[in-house]
Amino acid sequence: MSKNTYAIIGSGALGGFYGAKLQKAGLEVHFLLRSDYQHVLKNGLIIESKNGDFTLPQINAYNNTNKMPKCDVILVALKTTQNYLLPELLPPLCQENNVVLLLQNGLGTEPEIAKIVGEERVIGGVSNIASNKIGYGHIRHVDYGLIRIGKYTTNYQPAGITNKMREISQDFESAGIQVNLSEDLFQERWKKLVWNIPYNSLSVILDARTDEMMGDTNTRNLITEIMQEVLEGAKSCKCEIPNSYIQNMLDHTDKLNPYLTSMKIDYERRQPLEIESIIGNPLRMAGAADIQLNKIGMLYQQLKFLDARNRQDI
Amino acid sequence: MSKNTYAIIGSGALGGFYGAKLQKAGLEVHFLLRSDYQHVLKNGLIIESKNGDFTLPQINAYNNTNKMPKCDVILVALKTTQNYLLPELLPPLCQENNVVLLLQNGLGTEPEIAKIVGEERVIGGVSNIASNKIGYGHIRHVDYGLIRIGKYTTNYQPAGITNKMREISQDFESAGIQVNLSEDLFQERWKKLVWNIPYNSLSVILDARTDEMMGDTNTRNLITEIMQEVLEGAKSCKCEIPNSYIQNMLDHTDKLNPYLTSMKIDYERRQPLEIESIIGNPLRMAGAADIQLNKIGMLYQQLKFLDARNRQDI
Repeated sequence: MSKNTYAIIGSGALGGFYGAKLQKAGLEVHFLLRSDYQHVLKNGLIIESKNGDFTLPQINAYNNTNKMPKCDVILVALKTTQNYLLPELLPPLCQENNVVLLLQNGLGTEPEIAKIVGEERVIGGVSNIASNKIGYGHIRHVDYGLIRIGKYTTNYQPAGITNKMREISQDFESAGIQVNLSEDLFQERWKKLVWNIPYNSLSVILDARTDEMMGDTNTRNLITEIMQEVLEGAKSCKCEIPNSYIQNMLDHTDKLNPYLTSMKIDYERRQPLEIESIIGNPLRMAGAADIQLNKIGMLYQQLKFLDARNRQDI
Repeated sequence: MSKNTYAIIGSGALGGFYGAKLQKAGLEVHFLLRSDYQHVLKNGLIIESKNGDFTLPQINAYNNTNKMPKCDVILVALKTTQNYLLPELLPPLCQENNVVLLLQNGLGTEPEIAKIVGEERVIGGVSNIASNKIGYGHIRHVDYGLIRIGKYTTNYQPAGITNKMREISQDFESAGIQVNLSEDLFQERWKKLVWNIPYNSLSVILDARTDEMMGDTNTRNLITEIMQEVLEGAKSCKCEIPNSYIQNMLDHTDKLNPYLTSMKIDYERRQPLEIESIIGNPLRMAGAADIQLNKIGMLYQQLKFLDARNRQDI
């Protein structure tokens, strides 16, 4: 087993959960926290999980990356709306041969991170997980957890599987988290968008759960049409996703328990929405290839309005 | 001055207001009521209006068209969602040479009415009015009031100005209501849709007033793009509206006082929304001409979902 050490940047629903699982499996993990820092320093982390609850009474907690050791894997699990902090947060953590694993929603953030830490260091990943932070240092893992990771290269060209990726996979699997290794990070990101764009957007715009939207013919059709636009967008960027993937996603969602999307949770908490990474960036990439995605463009405009109004008096 | 008698079918914010103004001007008016019938029979109508408040302590009130006299003008001012009642309501009112004036939102209802009463009898109209029913027999006229009317002919072909239209115009003008006579009812209806489709739809979907939507760049652009789609829809039906009309509508709306659209008011009252006449019919007409209106199609789907959910436990 590898002896990789992990720095978790953003120890919320996602980073907090995965970091805790890694630490529980015996790995050395260091957590960057902000609002939870004082509480977690004193009380550690509580994880409620469908795979078994546990607590970590003591963790390595930091509120400043300058104080953190330089770990082998820097796992970035911030909301993309916080990425403007990364040019300051990441450089103190970098050392020769360590990597940044970007476990975030959407598209187009890897190039930004590559500018900060160097492209050779960047691994991207998408996570299928239903997990919420429900209090200071208190995370509830509802379901799933699979991660797909791939090496980032210029313009998201397909890349090989690196040794570091294999090590990360082993580390996570020792912690009970399945990691799929992919040679095509770009496709993984677009595939995730097939789900994320319609459900995240419409859950906010229509104030609706996935089961309500799937149970109504009009929204079900709309979701399907938006998914088709995502496939068009991917295709415009030379990323082919088979049409059958849409039916897979619909079937998958039919089986989900009634579920609030991450964007809906952010909206209800009056947090900034991940509109640019999930919707704006794919829209602009397709636009650069002269493909207009009408429905997704309209989702973007509706969400920008709602997000601005939602936070105007904060 | 003409001696036309008027039957008002649907004596709410619109029909109640215009009917009361006509009666106040000395014309013979008969009102069909439903929920307000008992109250109005006893107490008459109260009109609050920016042009002067007045009450009509006694009016000719009915709850059944079989009991009403056959008037010269049958003014239909029901919400289009109530039009399924018209095959029963209208026939008892028809006599030789009387007309049906259809003062309703949207497109595509005249052909339905023509099937019931005969095409020669049908005049259509659009009304620019801000008026609300705020209690039994109690109407608040906030602003505007202009009506544009035109003769209906098969497939909305342009038609001449009839004597009956001139008489109606004189009747209304004697009551202080301006009536413009049009030779192109179809164009009047499409022009009204340039405003009605974006503002009515988005006010419900985004839970927003017109001023909020106009003040945000994203929704302002979206409104403009939807207006462009309405023009495309009109054009697909051989109805040309100049592009400058969009700017007129935007400028006009910028000057409006913060305003809830009629569809938003219906939504808040959990009444059925006029989705089919305002959005569905224009969409289908353009579709029949092989023009897909993507954004309007998405408004339709979103509204159908919201409307169904809004009334599911009534």
